[in-house]
Amino acid sequence: MVLEPAEIWAYLIGRGSVPATATGTVREVGDGNMNRVFVAVPDDPAIPSVAVKQAPPWIQKLGPSAPMSPERALIEARALRTFAEYAPRQTPAVRDVDETRFAFTMEDLSDLTVLRTALNDGAEIGRTSAEVGELVGRVTFATSVAGADPRVRAALIQESVNPLLAEVTLQYLLGDPFVEAEHNHHHPALEDGVKRLRADPAVRTELAAIRAAFGAKAQALVHGDLHSGSVMVGVRDGEPVVRVIDPEFAMVGPIGLDLGLYVANLVIASVRSRNAAHLASIAECWDAFCAAWREGWPTRVDRLLDDGWLLRELRDVWHDTLGFAAVELVRRVAGYSHASDLETLPDPGPASALVLDLGHKLLVDREICGRRPDPRALAHLVSTSWEARQ
Amino acid sequence: MVLEPAEIWAYLIGRGSVPATATGTVREVGDGNMNRVFVAVPDDPAIPSVAVKQAPPWIQKLGPSAPMSPERALIEARALRTFAEYAPRQTPAVRDVDETRFAFTMEDLSDLTVLRTALNDGAEIGRTSAEVGELVGRVTFATSVAGADPRVRAALIQESVNPLLAEVTLQYLLGDPFVEAEHNHHHPALEDGVKRLRADPAVRTELAAIRAAFGAKAQALVHGDLHSGSVMVGVRDGEPVVRVIDPEFAMVGPIGLDLGLYVANLVIASVRSRNAAHLASIAECWDAFCAAWREGWPTRVDRLLDDGWLLRELRDVWHDTLGFAAVELVRRVAGYSHASDLETLPDPGPASALVLDLGHKLLVDREICGRRPDPRALAHLVSTSWEARQ
Repeated sequence: MVLEPAEIWAYLIGRGSVPATATGTVREVGDGNMNRVFVAVPDDPAIPSVAVKQAPPWIQKLGPSAPMSPERALIEARALRTFAEYAPRQTPAVRDVDETRFAFTMEDLSDLTVLRTALNDGAEIGRTSAEVGELVGRVTFATSVAGADPRVRAALIQESVNPLLAEVTLQYLLGDPFVEAEHNHHHPALEDGVKRLRADPAVRTELAAIRAAFGAKAQALVHGDLHSGSVMVGVRDGEPVVRVIDPEFAMVGPIGLDLGLYVANLVIASVRSRNAAHLASIAECWDAFCAAWREGWPTRVDRLLDDGWLLRELRDVWHDTLGFAAVELVRRVAGYSHASDLETLPDPGPASALVLDLGHKLLVDREICGRRPDPRALAHLVSTSWEARQ
Repeated sequence: MVLEPAEIWAYLIGRGSVPATATGTVREVGDGNMNRVFVAVPDDPAIPSVAVKQAPPWIQKLGPSAPMSPERALIEARALRTFAEYAPRQTPAVRDVDETRFAFTMEDLSDLTVLRTALNDGAEIGRTSAEVGELVGRVTFATSVAGADPRVRAALIQESVNPLLAEVTLQYLLGDPFVEAEHNHHHPALEDGVKRLRADPAVRTELAAIRAAFGAKAQALVHGDLHSGSVMVGVRDGEPVVRVIDPEFAMVGPIGLDLGLYVANLVIASVRSRNAAHLASIAECWDAFCAAWREGWPTRVDRLLDDGWLLRELRDVWHDTLGFAAVELVRRVAGYSHASDLETLPDPGPASALVLDLGHKLLVDREICGRRPDPRALAHLVSTSWEARQ
């Protein structure tokens, strides 16, 4: 059942993904904690290399003692297909889905770099945030009440129900970081800030609102885990390319989840590097998101939705974006899964404390950046916080 | 496939719903437009009579030229089972579900009267609204993010997806009444009011918000069609009984949908009768709804939801309640399906105009009754409108 490197060529030939005479090399690359990923490079340079991703019935990093439904591979492959329909430029091409082995074969991305790593290494953000915003905008518009027929949405909701990974999000993003929990950890410099956060009743109420939005707001198909580790960047044929990967957490949920996670990780990257372009790209992401909605708007299937509603809906998405961004900021310094952006600094203390403080502030008062969607005000808040801590 | 009266006893014996030797009479009663309903009364008075409800693959009233998925019978039976779990007192008992014939056998309710008919005939409302509020409160709490485990909710969302009937609601409640549409009709006295409503951009934006909430707010299992024609009342053994029937529109949706439809029909009944008790019972409904949530609250499965969130959530439900109530008020005088409460008045004109005006006012300014949930303020608004029109 579980694929091994020695089997990959026979597997690809058997699935018809490469010609029957193809030979080549295979290397296991892994994609983080959850899955197995193999890259198969044909000896014949005319045949494109591919990646085979398989979800074993456990968390790959932890092994059979940590069971996890392998269905996640099919959820991911289905989401990639939907993403490719509306945002083909930013979505890895899926070539084959194997429902029996919970595996799929896709475009080889091993020439690209994970965005978080690239930014940690001092890369410029370029147009990446605009590409991410466009993907989120196009996919969410097309799967929203505005863009999708109710029957299509009903089928999408049914097939995208993802309770196992929703539990992971509820625990590690929207739960544990805000209470005393086993796997939490934080830098000693954050001791007081973490205590204040966890004791603040306003934090608890806002967290509850965000948990409820996560559980009950079926706005559109979202990626569900769109941080800077889920974005790959690089150059092909002299042009920058961006691919959004790993939508195994995909579900019909609140649009602000994707934007919030991405924006929070831009904030973290900018706190690491003090690179104003990272911060400025928050607005590029938001503007591209809105542009995709406005581009789809004249073709909306629900003709009774009016321009007044669109303005309100975008405002609501911004409000959720700030909420999800705030919890992501907190999780990355006070939860289980920290950000390498901060962890690899010579002294992660001051930067982590700043991120925690921003998360706390934003969470309890999302209007700190004004009442209207204003990504530039958010960037300004962050950059003045750098300065105050210099 | 479609059951006929002559087959009912053999059917009930075959399904094991009555003893093999049972005999009796059958009469077809119908339940409105959609389904076939037969009441089977055994000759042996020791055997309780039952009702058999079947959904033919069309709208019963219109026949095979109006196809409609018979799955609705199974959605209804499943919803009744869930309702019975949390609100057994107000839910008809289901004895048998026949997935092959899209039929189910339930408690005979033919001794009860439809609430709308009873109120039209001058009956007092009694505790009915409190019973309805309790049912909505108990069912929605138990199926909300507060009351239900995420995996249970995921399964409920999957099985309750109800796109065909959602389309009916989107068209006849949340669509047609607000535009020029084929089956709309209204009393000549409403001509100007209907024109003003349909031309009002604020109406369009609020309607859009309500359509989007209907399509994307997966708060809890709702009945979906909870007007006063879906409530039966009567007396058994000297005690008043209330049964909420016909949840074939059930879906995981916004809680305010059920409360709004019910409240709007109380308003309409009160406009007909000028009976202050009908109006006062709006508060009884809301208070019973809130009491059921507060009763469930200490047992909530999501311990990270706090009291501050509960207050906000109830406020949000009230906001939606007013919105759905407003569209229901409009639909009942300017859409396709009018309310007999008004239609059977000697002159439906003035009362219908008042209902339209209330619907328009509430829709564009839900805070006309104050910013906090205040059912007494709503009742006051209605009663002062009676007076102004006297």
